[in-house]
Amino acid sequence: MNNILIIGAGRSATALINYTLNKAKENNWFVTVADADPALAERKVNNHPNGRATWLDALKDNDRRELIGRADVVVSLLPAHLHFEVAQDCVKLKKHLITASYVSQEMQKLGDKVRNHELIFMGELGLDPGIDHMSAMQRIEAIKAKGGKITAFRSYAGGVVAPESDDNPWHYKFTWNPRNVVRAGTGTAQYFENGKFKYMPYHRLFREYWLVNIQDMGEWEAYANRDSMLYRDIYGLSGIPNIVRGTLRHKGFCDAWAALVKIGMTDSSFPIFDSAKLSYHELMEAYVPAGTGSVKERLAALIREEPNSPVMEKLEWLGLFKKSKIKVANATPALILEQLLLDKWKLHPNDKDMVIMQHEIEYELAGRKRRHTSTMVMKGENESDTAMARLVGLPLGIFVKLVMESKINARGVQIPVMREVYEPVLKELEEYGVVFKDKDEAI
Amino acid sequence: MNNILIIGAGRSATALINYTLNKAKENNWFVTVADADPALAERKVNNHPNGRATWLDALKDNDRRELIGRADVVVSLLPAHLHFEVAQDCVKLKKHLITASYVSQEMQKLGDKVRNHELIFMGELGLDPGIDHMSAMQRIEAIKAKGGKITAFRSYAGGVVAPESDDNPWHYKFTWNPRNVVRAGTGTAQYFENGKFKYMPYHRLFREYWLVNIQDMGEWEAYANRDSMLYRDIYGLSGIPNIVRGTLRHKGFCDAWAALVKIGMTDSSFPIFDSAKLSYHELMEAYVPAGTGSVKERLAALIREEPNSPVMEKLEWLGLFKKSKIKVANATPALILEQLLLDKWKLHPNDKDMVIMQHEIEYELAGRKRRHTSTMVMKGENESDTAMARLVGLPLGIFVKLVMESKINARGVQIPVMREVYEPVLKELEEYGVVFKDKDEAI
Repeated sequence: MNNILIIGAGRSATALINYTLNKAKENNWFVTVADADPALAERKVNNHPNGRATWLDALKDNDRRELIGRADVVVSLLPAHLHFEVAQDCVKLKKHLITASYVSQEMQKLGDKVRNHELIFMGELGLDPGIDHMSAMQRIEAIKAKGGKITAFRSYAGGVVAPESDDNPWHYKFTWNPRNVVRAGTGTAQYFENGKFKYMPYHRLFREYWLVNIQDMGEWEAYANRDSMLYRDIYGLSGIPNIVRGTLRHKGFCDAWAALVKIGMTDSSFPIFDSAKLSYHELMEAYVPAGTGSVKERLAALIREEPNSPVMEKLEWLGLFKKSKIKVANATPALILEQLLLDKWKLHPNDKDMVIMQHEIEYELAGRKRRHTSTMVMKGENESDTAMARLVGLPLGIFVKLVMESKINARGVQIPVMREVYEPVLKELEEYGVVFKDKDEAI
Repeated sequence: MNNILIIGAGRSATALINYTLNKAKENNWFVTVADADPALAERKVNNHPNGRATWLDALKDNDRRELIGRADVVVSLLPAHLHFEVAQDCVKLKKHLITASYVSQEMQKLGDKVRNHELIFMGELGLDPGIDHMSAMQRIEAIKAKGGKITAFRSYAGGVVAPESDDNPWHYKFTWNPRNVVRAGTGTAQYFENGKFKYMPYHRLFREYWLVNIQDMGEWEAYANRDSMLYRDIYGLSGIPNIVRGTLRHKGFCDAWAALVKIGMTDSSFPIFDSAKLSYHELMEAYVPAGTGSVKERLAALIREEPNSPVMEKLEWLGLFKKSKIKVANATPALILEQLLLDKWKLHPNDKDMVIMQHEIEYELAGRKRRHTSTMVMKGENESDTAMARLVGLPLGIFVKLVMESKINARGVQIPVMREVYEPVLKELEEYGVVFKDKDEAI
């Protein structure tokens, strides 16, 4: 095996491409980077002798299959809804597949075929999901190995702006797909607390956050992340009374985002007629109840805030009360918001991003209650070399290497919760500064 | 032309079937009633010499086409998403089509073909939409004819329980499709107020209702009904600064329904795992924040109510805090709620339902501001002969007759806003007690 195909050359591909190209010569690998924008792929490959950039429209079945047919291992960084086409090709052409995305139900159903062909399709192998699974499993298994009985598992992660580059009242900038940030949390989050199911519908999610103390980093807000129950059995925590995965945001973020949800600005279900002829002020007028006060006053009343509260300050800073025209035509409210935030939450060239991850595992050992806290914080270098891109790309790259070296025995559709995966990946990640700080204390 | 096909024999078909059978002998019509439940169709046809009941699975293309092929006019009372299959057959087989449902965009796109075949596809010809369009157009055109300039059009309708049969704290019982009641309002309502667009997202809809005074009936709550803007041009009201269609509910209903929305009980997007093993109390526990008070107390805090408020009384009356098991397995929250309400909001055999409709048209005439108010209230006889079923079925039946008599010249995909339709239909409806009370006053 010596041919690696990376589909997608965008932001989260950089660290992966660099890693594989750096390892290519000594291992005699050949790395093909395919993207709908071939110039982007070429910039990323940067004339490396073991690399090749190529054009690919992932929706063109024949082109896609031809590329996949020539590879041994395929890494797909396409948007999640396009993975399945690639996965079907990989089944037919008998190629290993690696992604950083959540494993969909339809992907899960390929499991038997994948196993029968002696292949591994590894999903959720980025940061979150990805490094969170691996670092959590390492600690869960260590606690079990010493005889601990785990009673609570809480895992938090967030990609934000580093304090030294934080210059806006939201204390947030985009470090991953803006569309996914705007639509984050849609659906109903599920988790387990004190032995009871918990359901959290989207319109309550950002209002019912809680505070989490991150080692050496102070308090952060957390909101429930998707369906935590999916991982209870996979993590070997069947019967545990508390399990929740949460997304971290700077204090003050969630109340303000909840206001945008309440207004209706994260709604992607209908286009606003002639939106490019409206100003942001007119759009807000369309959303607030009619009345005598200003739009801003009526909006404040709608979201039960004082007109100069920190939440209102954040909305005002976005420009929602300005009379400038909306920049996108016949757009959904969510797209209008995304377009506005693209300007406002842009990482500047020298801005550093920051990723925070923390696991909190409560357990009983020899009749005493203990808490293990495990924290990783990483900052990026600048707008293109972000912690986010490294932490998504490096686990993918390291795992590609393990597969190329035939060191992975697992087969089927998997996520990285097995020791043969998480031990070597986490070990090598340390070389790149991905280090968890562990604390274990009586409670 | 003498063959009428009615697809669907459910509750809303009764008045239509009776009307067409009553007119069948004198007109030498033959009426075929097709339903997936042939015994139901037979009971409705009741051995009438000009009627025939037959079995039809509307998803079976050949069976459906064979029946449609033998008809001259087809009335589809199928669920809205099945109309399009019927419509495509009617285009191919060159048959007129009549429905009481909202005209979908895909239906709209058949317009040219329908017109080219000299057919009429009439939609929105029930109560609401239907009688509301016709009675509104009659008044709008009368005001215009006398030189009035219309500045506001507000139209309200509601199907509720009659006061003499009202024995529950919600003051509501099911008189139409329970699923549609539970999911009512999902999406974003749109209307126009003081010359400005208004958007109302679902999670705000039932909280931001307003009060409407109905002639001789006191105050009712109204919430915005779908996209009122769609009707501005169709009603000939281009440029009007105020247009809204609203749904009427008894006072106290909307706040309590808003509580169900906020909790998450109207969500149909995910199944509750093992729901039949849970009690309603456990389900509520899953939805309220953890804490020290009872589930009821914590739920009251979540929705910002006192534990014994009228809203909480309504939730308690539904049995949401009872320890009895949920009756439906792996169901969505919306389906669990629907199942619960089916018991609680059932019309008893001698219960009477009530339909209320009111248009409020503000206009200027000779420099003076005036308001025209037009109100229709109708009560049913009992659980099967409901006002709702009559008001949905009779316009369909009367229009079938007009088409059979070749009195309708309109062609294409239409809704009943043209005089040749609304005048004769409204006139004949009066014979069945559908009478509007009109008041015109200076304001």
